[in-house]
Amino acid sequence: MNENHPTGVSPLPLVHGGDWAGYSEEYGAQPLDFSANVSPLGVPGGVKRAIAAAAETADRYPDPLCRALSRKLAAHEQVPESYVLCGNGAADLIFRAVLAKRPKKALLPAPAFAEYEAALTACGCQVELYFLREENDFRLDEGFLEAIVPGIDMVFLCEPNNPTGVSSPREFLLRTAERCKRCGALFMLDECFGDFLEEPDKHTLKGALSEYPNLVILKAFTKLYAMAGVRLGYALCADGELMEKMRQTGQPWAVSSLAQAAGEAALDETAYVESVRQMVLRERPWMMEQLTRLGLRVVPGEANYLLFRCPVPLIKPLRQRGILLRSCANYHGLDENWYRTAVRTHEENARLIETLADILK
Amino acid sequence: MNENHPTGVSPLPLVHGGDWAGYSEEYGAQPLDFSANVSPLGVPGGVKRAIAAAAETADRYPDPLCRALSRKLAAHEQVPESYVLCGNGAADLIFRAVLAKRPKKALLPAPAFAEYEAALTACGCQVELYFLREENDFRLDEGFLEAIVPGIDMVFLCEPNNPTGVSSPREFLLRTAERCKRCGALFMLDECFGDFLEEPDKHTLKGALSEYPNLVILKAFTKLYAMAGVRLGYALCADGELMEKMRQTGQPWAVSSLAQAAGEAALDETAYVESVRQMVLRERPWMMEQLTRLGLRVVPGEANYLLFRCPVPLIKPLRQRGILLRSCANYHGLDENWYRTAVRTHEENARLIETLADILK
Repeated sequence: MNENHPTGVSPLPLVHGGDWAGYSEEYGAQPLDFSANVSPLGVPGGVKRAIAAAAETADRYPDPLCRALSRKLAAHEQVPESYVLCGNGAADLIFRAVLAKRPKKALLPAPAFAEYEAALTACGCQVELYFLREENDFRLDEGFLEAIVPGIDMVFLCEPNNPTGVSSPREFLLRTAERCKRCGALFMLDECFGDFLEEPDKHTLKGALSEYPNLVILKAFTKLYAMAGVRLGYALCADGELMEKMRQTGQPWAVSSLAQAAGEAALDETAYVESVRQMVLRERPWMMEQLTRLGLRVVPGEANYLLFRCPVPLIKPLRQRGILLRSCANYHGLDENWYRTAVRTHEENARLIETLADILK
Repeated sequence: MNENHPTGVSPLPLVHGGDWAGYSEEYGAQPLDFSANVSPLGVPGGVKRAIAAAAETADRYPDPLCRALSRKLAAHEQVPESYVLCGNGAADLIFRAVLAKRPKKALLPAPAFAEYEAALTACGCQVELYFLREENDFRLDEGFLEAIVPGIDMVFLCEPNNPTGVSSPREFLLRTAERCKRCGALFMLDECFGDFLEEPDKHTLKGALSEYPNLVILKAFTKLYAMAGVRLGYALCADGELMEKMRQTGQPWAVSSLAQAAGEAALDETAYVESVRQMVLRERPWMMEQLTRLGLRVVPGEANYLLFRCPVPLIKPLRQRGILLRSCANYHGLDENWYRTAVRTHEENARLIETLADILK
C-alpha cells in the first residue's frame, strides 16, 4: 500500500480548476468557485428533468451512435448529420482525435488549454509551442501561421483562447485552416467558449467545414449549459473517414444515456442561453473595470472568464475566505502571478472584487 | 456530405449487443433485449434517486479523483484506497491500461470481449490469439499458460469469460498471474461478471493484488446494478505508478458526477444485489435445460448469460418478434451459428424459449 497517497489516485496536484471536492475535504464547506468557467445560472431545469427521466432506463447501454442527439445537434449547428461525433466531454474527443491521427509533431499556442498537450504527449507526439506575447495581449500573429510547415501534423487552437479569452479575426482562422490543409496538418479548432463571444456566428468556422475536411471543430455543453458534471461534447468535421477512426479509437459507449438525454434537452433551452449570454456580456466589462481599478493588469478577454496578473499571492487567502480562483502558474508562458477568474452573477462577482480589495489593501 | 451514411457516424455494423436504439428506429417500438448482459431488474431505486439529486449540482466539474466513491469502493472491495481507479465504464479503463503500458505484443483468449482487441490494435499492438476449444467447453488450459512467454507484454482474461460464461479454477488464475509476473507481462483480469458466480469470493483474485503488482482487476457497475447507461467501472491494482499513468492517459473528468453519485448509492443496494443473484442462479439452469430441450448445444456458463449454437438463423426472426439476441458471428473462434442470450426474469426467459420453439419447429 502506498502510504503517501491515502486518497489513492494522485500524488500530483490537480492541474485544472473546479476542484470543489478538494476544497470541501479541507474546509468541510462548499466554495464559491471562480476557478471553473461554467455558466453561473446552474443546470437548466429542463436538463435536470431529462436526466432524472433518463435514469429510469439507464439499465440499457447508451446508444453508441448517439443517433437522436446527433440529429438534433446537426439541425442546431446547421451541418449535415454525418459531420457530428459526440464524446464524453470535449476532452474525450481531443484524445480520440490524437489517437486517430497519430501525429509525430504538433503545434500549440502557449498558453492554452492543458489537455491538448496532455493528449499529445500521452501518445508520444512531439509538441512545438508558439509563445504568445503578453505585450500583444497574447494575440495570435503571423508568426503562428509561419510556424505551420510541412512536418507539423496537427495544430490546436482555442477560440476564444483559454485562459486568455482573446479571439482572432475569422479571416486569420481561415488562413490557418488553409495553411494546415496545404501542409497536411489536422486543424483542431476548439470553439468551446465561442458562444460567449458577442457575435458567435461571425466568428465560428462551422461554415468552412466542407471546404476544409482537415478542420475539426470542438464544442461542449459544459460551459454554456452548466453541464460540466454531465460530460458531453462534440466534434464537427467533414472528413467521414477521420470521424469513423475517432469513433473507433475509444470505447463505443463513451457518452452515457444520461448525457445524451441531457444534451437533447439542453438544445431546447434557448431562453437560458440568452440569459447566460446577456449576463456575461454585462458582467465581463464590469469585472474588467473593477480588477483594473484594483491596479491589476487584465487581459481584454471576450469569453466568460478573464486573465489577470497580480503580484500578491491570491490562492490561499481567497481559499481561506471561501473562494476558488484558478492559478495560471502551470500554463506555459504564464507564471504564479497570473490568475484566471470566471465571470459569474453580479452579486458573486462583487463578492470576489470586495474580497480581492480586502486582500490587496 | 456523406450521403451513404445519413446517421452520420458509422458505416460499420455495430459489433456489440444492446442496440435497442437501432431496433427502435427500425420498428418504432422497444425490444425485449437478450443481447445485453445486464440485470433484468432495472436501475435500483436508490441509484435513480441519487442521479436525480446529483443533477442539481452537475454544473460543477466532476471530482477528477472520485474521492468519495473510491473510498467507499475500497471499503466495499476490502482493498486499500490507493488500489482503486474509477473510469467511464470498464471499457474506458481497458483503453487507459493499454495506453499506459504501450504493449508491443499481447495475448488474448478467443473468443473474448471485443474491446480488448479494439484497444490493443488502436494503439498499434500486435495481438496473439489463443483459441479455446469447443470440445473442451471453451475452457482455458495449460496451453494458455505456456503461451505466456517473454515478449508478451500484456495478457487479458475475462472471468467468467464473455461470451462463454465459463470460469477457470482460482488456482489456474494465480498461476497465470505468476507466469505474467515472471515474463514482465501486465495481467488484465476482467471480473465484470464475477458477481454472478455462485461463490464470487472464492474466485476473485482481489486477495492477490498486493502479491502481484502486475495484476489489474477490472470491475463495473454495468451488469450487477443495471447501470449500463450510466457508465461506471473501476480498476483495482497495487502498482501506484501504473495507476497514476492510467489516470493521466485520458481526460481528468472521465467519470461524470452523475455516475459517481450513482456508484455510491449502488453500493448500498445489498438487497437488490441479492435478488439479482438469486434470480440468475435460479434462471440460468432453467434456461440451460430449456435450450438443450430445443436440441441446441449450450455451453455450461456460470454468468448471467449463456452461449449456444443453433444451425437456424435466429437474429432476424427474433427481431421481427420483438426480441434482440446477440449474434456471436464476429467473435474470433465462433461463427454465425453461435448466439449469446442474457438470463432475464422468468417470464421474459419463458417468452424467449417459446419464441425460439416457434421459430425452430
